[in-house]
Parts: sequence; structure tokens; C-alpha cells
Amino acid sequence: MPIRLVNVVVDAADGSALGLFWSELLGWPVAVDTPDDVDVRCPDVGELIFDLVFAPVTEAKVVNNLVHADLASNSAEHQRALGRRALDAGATPVDIGQGDVPWAVLQDPEGAEFCVLTPR
Amino acid sequence: MPIRLVNVVVDAADGSALGLFWSELLGWPVAVDTPDDVDVRCPDVGELIFDLVFAPVTEAKVVNNLVHADLASNSAEHQRALGRRALDAGATPVDIGQGDVPWAVLQDPEGAEFCVLTPR
Repeated sequence: MPIRLVNVVVDAADGSALGLFWSELLGWPVAVDTPDDVDVRCPDVGELIFDLVFAPVTEAKVVNNLVHADLASNSAEHQRALGRRALDAGATPVDIGQGDVPWAVLQDPEGAEFCVLTPR
Repeated sequence: MPIRLVNVVVDAADGSALGLFWSELLGWPVAVDTPDDVDVRCPDVGELIFDLVFAPVTEAKVVNNLVHADLASNSAEHQRALGRRALDAGATPVDIGQGDVPWAVLQDPEGAEFCVLTPR
């Protein structure tokens, strides 16, 4: 039986703010919001749970792109709209040397890169 | 409409080896294995795609735990078996100061932490 990935946990200087950003961007509800644990829940997995968990940390952070998220779009217009929605929610465009690529590369409010992909 | 998270992309010194580790651990098939792109595909999402993507990088890596994965178990025995399976596949236990917790904290072959959670 395949193993279920239940959480992707992201260290955050401000878990509530970062969770709210991702909730707005993805259209996923904030299911838990405590000082220790902010969970943004994928609404598309039925009885199961898949959460992005924003865990507050106090350590200084080394920003890198060891792990990043790719968001799907379903049309060229959807990709553009999703990029605008990300900017409105507080993302910023970032040049990490990607060159002239058809996907958008952005940073969330704490500097983590993510991509908005071409339709699929 | 909620946005779909399609990939979680992980930088890897050896994408094929790291992809194989995660494929064995999760019981998810390797759907793509090229020098530039190793995709381990979640089999539980029907017509949709959710992949862990291992993208080879040549830069020296700063290991941290900015983002990590939590794996679900469905019984105490399953949690123990999954922990053993992870060790057999090449994971190692790691002490990141978690103290006496009921979940297992492990590192994958490239040093990224992940947890095997209590039943849920």
C-alpha cells in the first residue's frame, strides 16, 4: 500500500502571516491556527488530510531553494490570473537565473521560491 | 476553485539515487528518470498528478530543515514497519533536539529530515 504524505512542514518566522498568504494563494482554508501550528488544508483529498504546515521558528533562516512548490494552471489565462493573485497576496517576482522560461518564478513573503506552471 | 499543488521539487546531488530512496520508502513509482528530472508519482490522486521531483543540482548544499515531509501511518505496527522500511532503504535516525516524541525523526540519504507520524 502506498504511504501517504500527510504534511509538508515549512519553518516560518511568522507562521500566521505565511499561512494566510498560502491560504489566499491556493484557495485552501486555514484549518488550524495556533501559536505553534498553522495548517493550510488541501480541500481536494476527500476524507484524507494533506496540509501545508507553517511551524514558527526563532532561528535565523538561511534562504535557499532546496525544496520548492510548483502550482498547476489549467489555461494560459489561468496561469496569468494565478500569477496576478500571487502578487496581490504578497509574492514578488524573482530572478534565480531561470532565463526565458514559460513558467513564473516568484518568492513568498519569507523568500521561498515557487513556480506557477504552464497549463497541464 | 482551489489551486492544485502539482510538484514538490527537491534539489538533489544525485537525483536518481534520492528518487529511488523515496520511491522505495513511499511505494510510489518512478514515473520519470532522466538526467535532469526524476519524478516519483503519488498513485492516489486519480487522473491528477502529484510528484516529488528530484532536480539535480551541482551547487554545494546548505542542509537545513526549512521544509520537511511528514509520513502518515495507520497503526502503531504500521508506524514501526514504516520506520524499519525507511532504515532499510537508507535513512538514518537523527537527533535535531526533538526530545522524547512519539514520532520518528529520520534523515534521507542527502540529509533532509522527515518524520514518521503516529497513527492517524
